[in-house]
Amino acid sequence: MASEFEIIERYFKKKMKQTLLGIGDDAAIINIQKNHKIAISSDMLVENIHFLKNTNPSHLGWKCLAVNLSDIAAMGAKPKWATLSISLPKINHVWLKKFSSGFFKCANRFGIDLIGGDTAKGPLTISITVLGEVRKNERLLRSGAKIDDDIWVTGQLGIASMGLASLQGKLNLPPHLKTKCIKALETPIPKVLLGSHLSRYSNSCIDISDGLIQDLSHILKASKVSAQLHLMNIPCDNFIHKSKKYQFIFNGGDDYELLFSAPVRNRAHIKKIAKKTNTTVSIIGTITRKKPLKILDHEGNLMVFNPRGFDHFA
Amino acid sequence: MASEFEIIERYFKKKMKQTLLGIGDDAAIINIQKNHKIAISSDMLVENIHFLKNTNPSHLGWKCLAVNLSDIAAMGAKPKWATLSISLPKINHVWLKKFSSGFFKCANRFGIDLIGGDTAKGPLTISITVLGEVRKNERLLRSGAKIDDDIWVTGQLGIASMGLASLQGKLNLPPHLKTKCIKALETPIPKVLLGSHLSRYSNSCIDISDGLIQDLSHILKASKVSAQLHLMNIPCDNFIHKSKKYQFIFNGGDDYELLFSAPVRNRAHIKKIAKKTNTTVSIIGTITRKKPLKILDHEGNLMVFNPRGFDHFA
Repeated sequence: MASEFEIIERYFKKKMKQTLLGIGDDAAIINIQKNHKIAISSDMLVENIHFLKNTNPSHLGWKCLAVNLSDIAAMGAKPKWATLSISLPKINHVWLKKFSSGFFKCANRFGIDLIGGDTAKGPLTISITVLGEVRKNERLLRSGAKIDDDIWVTGQLGIASMGLASLQGKLNLPPHLKTKCIKALETPIPKVLLGSHLSRYSNSCIDISDGLIQDLSHILKASKVSAQLHLMNIPCDNFIHKSKKYQFIFNGGDDYELLFSAPVRNRAHIKKIAKKTNTTVSIIGTITRKKPLKILDHEGNLMVFNPRGFDHFA
Repeated sequence: MASEFEIIERYFKKKMKQTLLGIGDDAAIINIQKNHKIAISSDMLVENIHFLKNTNPSHLGWKCLAVNLSDIAAMGAKPKWATLSISLPKINHVWLKKFSSGFFKCANRFGIDLIGGDTAKGPLTISITVLGEVRKNERLLRSGAKIDDDIWVTGQLGIASMGLASLQGKLNLPPHLKTKCIKALETPIPKVLLGSHLSRYSNSCIDISDGLIQDLSHILKASKVSAQLHLMNIPCDNFIHKSKKYQFIFNGGDDYELLFSAPVRNRAHIKKIAKKTNTTVSIIGTITRKKPLKILDHEGNLMVFNPRGFDHFA
């Protein structure tokens, strides 16, 4: 792309706040605080696969950074730096202006420096790597869940996937709810502040990107434990209870909420840091010894698991 | 892609040698040595733009990592970790096996751990981020060149772009030279060891990816200096001198040699570390005060610069 340098100058080169050397040399250089390690996460988003063709470019810029921040937060780390590589079919200044403004809106809100990347000609593809700092011995792994831990989630589940289903014409929603769901889908709020404070109180953590069941299963498998969940306690919009469309809670993707387990004795601490970081949190179940994962419905009855997921219920 | 986990397990999850936590959680975690900083470089390669459709997948796997290692080496840093994100039109196990084997051949040769990344369905696109360690105050920038510095390059220039021209049917080469040129194009050797030893003796450095003139110009601009080069001293295949196809030296891309400047008093030191790291090095000119960049031909006459580059000579 002839004007690669110009695109970078114009849209992606901003003042660095926590970076020794940013965009402009063969590589960027950063400094890590004493007694900290580095958490690194990469994601690639392809048009028509991870986002719809006509997605608002500003929302897309926000989201592609936000989903990586969510991964870093789920490690108990504080995200600080990002690289962005992007291939575009042609140089579209209107699109680039909107995309970069959404990207930096998210970057500024969460204190991220964009330190490098690449631009190329090609089908619209966005690849981001985020780096964060984590204190020695405070990383939050999937493998740390202990028997009798409380299972917690942030926010409400299922909202984003309801937004997607609604955009795809597969779900009718009342207008106010549709707006809320599409907002959750397009501009998710990564739980960055809570994540970086959780590690002292929590035993395991993951961010929910593929649906509650699949992501909880990653924790259970890595920790060699099982779990029991209470449907009534899973935070979601009332629409889900009324319509019984529980598949959005269990299998819906794109939530980018944190799912974590913590000893019962830490409840007060966790509620305190949730309040401090302005995050809603809910206890939705308990880590147990015995497989399989159980989910109890409103009346305390076991919900029946279908091999393809929880999308059909008895 | 349904079997993303399987692809990663099968082709990309290897034993880590210098990594606290590799592939398998929300993010990887690495530790940086005391008194070191981190250099980070990202590149994106798109099929039919950065590589030809039928490129040998094993060579492609090698090259996409090698070009990023070259960037890190050009900062005076030692590359240690990489993330790889790749989008593929479909799961092709033969291709993945070859691609990953080439990638790890390069990773193993230069001591790199693959610590994360992503796989997606989409047009063939490869996005890599490499991280390296650099000692405090030993980073090598483009902006450090000083008047009277020697200008050095590693290896031979123009070979890779001759390989590309030959594959495109634009250049006829004798068979043995064609093989050498295509090898340089498809499996370049990044000057990793030399790069990480250069910083004590050298004032500025860049890797040559876009041709000698363009990359030297980056150093000159960043350092606010100029240069004089001697055509006779630029290392290249004899074919170039015989055919006078100097455009391959000056404008040919994909060399991935290091171009650096160093005080005259450091000549012996540089030759010593070049020998120690088994790298050929040549002095091709001098950093000067006065613009423009001058190139002297075999007879000491000034070569005439064409605004589109040095592809036509007087």
